[in-house]
Amino acid sequence: MVQVSILQTDLYQLTMMAAYFREGMNPTSTFELFVRKLPPNRSYLIFAGLEEALEVLEDLHFSTKEIDYLQSLPSFAHIDKSFFEALRNFRFEGEIWAAKEGEVVFAGEPLLRVTAPLLEAQLIETMLLSVINMSTMIASKAARVVSAAQGRDVVEFGTRRAHGPEAGLLAARSSYIAGCVGTSNVEAGHRYGIPVVGTCAHSFIMSFAKEEDAFRSYAAAFPEHATLLIDTYDTLQGAHLAAKATPKLRGVRLDSGDLATLSKKVRVILDQEGQPDAKIVASNDLNEEKIAQLLKEGAPIDIFGVGTELATSKDAPALGGVYKLVAQEDAPGHVRYVLKNSPGKPSYPGAKQLYRFYSDEGHAKHDLITLAEEHPPQGSEALLSCVMRDGKRTRPAPTLQEIQAYSKSTLARFPQELRELASELHYPVQRSAKIDEARQVALDAMPKSMD
Amino acid sequence: MVQVSILQTDLYQLTMMAAYFREGMNPTSTFELFVRKLPPNRSYLIFAGLEEALEVLEDLHFSTKEIDYLQSLPSFAHIDKSFFEALRNFRFEGEIWAAKEGEVVFAGEPLLRVTAPLLEAQLIETMLLSVINMSTMIASKAARVVSAAQGRDVVEFGTRRAHGPEAGLLAARSSYIAGCVGTSNVEAGHRYGIPVVGTCAHSFIMSFAKEEDAFRSYAAAFPEHATLLIDTYDTLQGAHLAAKATPKLRGVRLDSGDLATLSKKVRVILDQEGQPDAKIVASNDLNEEKIAQLLKEGAPIDIFGVGTELATSKDAPALGGVYKLVAQEDAPGHVRYVLKNSPGKPSYPGAKQLYRFYSDEGHAKHDLITLAEEHPPQGSEALLSCVMRDGKRTRPAPTLQEIQAYSKSTLARFPQELRELASELHYPVQRSAKIDEARQVALDAMPKSMD
Repeated sequence: MVQVSILQTDLYQLTMMAAYFREGMNPTSTFELFVRKLPPNRSYLIFAGLEEALEVLEDLHFSTKEIDYLQSLPSFAHIDKSFFEALRNFRFEGEIWAAKEGEVVFAGEPLLRVTAPLLEAQLIETMLLSVINMSTMIASKAARVVSAAQGRDVVEFGTRRAHGPEAGLLAARSSYIAGCVGTSNVEAGHRYGIPVVGTCAHSFIMSFAKEEDAFRSYAAAFPEHATLLIDTYDTLQGAHLAAKATPKLRGVRLDSGDLATLSKKVRVILDQEGQPDAKIVASNDLNEEKIAQLLKEGAPIDIFGVGTELATSKDAPALGGVYKLVAQEDAPGHVRYVLKNSPGKPSYPGAKQLYRFYSDEGHAKHDLITLAEEHPPQGSEALLSCVMRDGKRTRPAPTLQEIQAYSKSTLARFPQELRELASELHYPVQRSAKIDEARQVALDAMPKSMD
Repeated sequence: MVQVSILQTDLYQLTMMAAYFREGMNPTSTFELFVRKLPPNRSYLIFAGLEEALEVLEDLHFSTKEIDYLQSLPSFAHIDKSFFEALRNFRFEGEIWAAKEGEVVFAGEPLLRVTAPLLEAQLIETMLLSVINMSTMIASKAARVVSAAQGRDVVEFGTRRAHGPEAGLLAARSSYIAGCVGTSNVEAGHRYGIPVVGTCAHSFIMSFAKEEDAFRSYAAAFPEHATLLIDTYDTLQGAHLAAKATPKLRGVRLDSGDLATLSKKVRVILDQEGQPDAKIVASNDLNEEKIAQLLKEGAPIDIFGVGTELATSKDAPALGGVYKLVAQEDAPGHVRYVLKNSPGKPSYPGAKQLYRFYSDEGHAKHDLITLAEEHPPQGSEALLSCVMRDGKRTRPAPTLQEIQAYSKSTLARFPQELRELASELHYPVQRSAKIDEARQVALDAMPKSMD
């Protein structure tokens, strides 16, 4: 679980809570998390981060030290002590509906819906967004990289360029969900059970007087697991030396130069030297485009190590997921649908559900967003289910392996065009008529100008 | 301090350690951290993350659980138990020289130099890179945003789009170093003493039947600190209502629409309504370019709230800092300079120092990289100093306020052209002749091909 203090939130969440508390307002409220539009180069998203976020929510509480800090802030100078007393007992006890982690989702779709007393629902916004935005962004990038590799293994190597150590962990986790087979991040293995993988570094080779000494030493330490880095001095020379270093070489890594040409030459050398089972691992600022190009050129690369580009989703490094109030229970049984009317940021009121329709062959045809209260449309599958009730998960967390398997199976139900790197396919997402009606009702009820 | 388990490292660091251990190799080694080239749109970097990294190093150790996990990995099947026993006593006890946190630095310059037994120096690579790459990247972005604001306040609002909660914290910290005046991240205030700031959200306005009720409620709770969000329904209408909500309005926030035009109209309304001291805060996917444009159009915005673009360094979201072995003590008193020779990745051997030359008026003129053993050139300032010895800091950590003040003063010594958003100024960084000689010596000593 990511380590999250309850104060890792925006100040305004806490000031709004204090203002609500002062008014005695704490109506049951519904917020929805969605992404307004797809980032550049993305034709779909892989929803990720859910289980991490739920785990944080189950444990959310204020320590005395944290409350003391809040009380010391000038902003809170006029806030009554009873508010800070109330924080001592704060727990998230709401209900959450969400898409499955690993699900294929699109812009405008409700991905997660929180219904809780207003103060609880408000406070958790920042954490939910930062965990889910980041994880979904990386998983969506990883899905592209994995697609580009056409069945060859992709491993995640990016912690050193991730946005801090925790981002490295979340990147490893999200990449695995979307089909990477392993990560170099050892803590990600320890914490999440992701297979950990690695080769060796240039510094290792350089620490020995001769390259062959380095190779022999490493192979002796890891008789079945030695993947040797061969580009420190001369790649082809390195390939010969690596092949001779041990009778059963696991593999070699190329980290510079023309990877297509070098991998072909290295493959020949390894085969000639009696190492037909040795794998070729390639790295060096790889991304989905470069991988596709390498495979197009026939590069006999078995494993792609992808770092910076994957762990930062470099071409689309920020996912603009938002969390918006859509309904509030003003009085028992009286739910008011709400929306804001800011230019360029259309929103739709009301708690919603998301349905997916499939062809007879099981291919995803289109999605439909409805109000949650509407009857499920025939022949469709509801994508949001209740994952937390009274602040507790409704079921045990799936394993990361299960999430990965689910994600793979769901993505396979979409047309191949959607998964192409330059896809311009616009998967159809519709809204029910009732949502548009609800929007009109909410707009009509909206405060008018004074004149 | 960021929470970092010692396992948040790449597997190969640990496998290489095991192989060295097996050979009985643990020579004193020197690694240097540097950035090969500046990212797009950057004419300089603000070095950041140092004090966080040092704090992690002081506490680095393996728990029994972590060692058990390592021992369970298939890779380590043939590694002797004595290695895992040795890990129990692992501490970082090396020496570190580094630039001051907040320093203006450039591509190719040594920013941090580690001299330690090889096993220690190797293990810490991943953590050092992920903390310093990320922090330096964000601080460098923030410096641009702060420059663009021409003295108006910039506050960091980006946690919800940062790469996870910890990245939000590191982004707040790095932004503050480069001149932001505050952050919305409450934990960043708690942990680092950064001023925390905030307004209110659309959901707050929408939770009340009327906008004016929301404004009055918030102003009553925060009599001197109410900055009201006025674009939920109609911005100009909102400005009137906000001005009437309290006799002494702190400010209003605009979060959509044409910010230049709206801010001018809102300023007039606030002044007419007797609120000349109320500040205008603007947000909505701002970055340095948009801020420069708004100021060019004469927008009377007092405070810029910058989120996504800042907390992810969106136009340049990955900094390619590397950590390379440059020297190794093969025998007592015999230091070997090393380098790798991979195509496209030139490296320079030997422990280095970085000097800065100033004009008589105190302006930075150029930098010079030398071997650490060279005499300090006359009239220059050494930028690397010893910050850690025997694994302990050589001095107390400066406060974040001190780091911010230092960064501001050092940046002010560079020409204005360097700080322009579209700067093409190439600040001169030279290498001493002795480094090129050492490179030649190392190349000559490099393992040759077999034939």
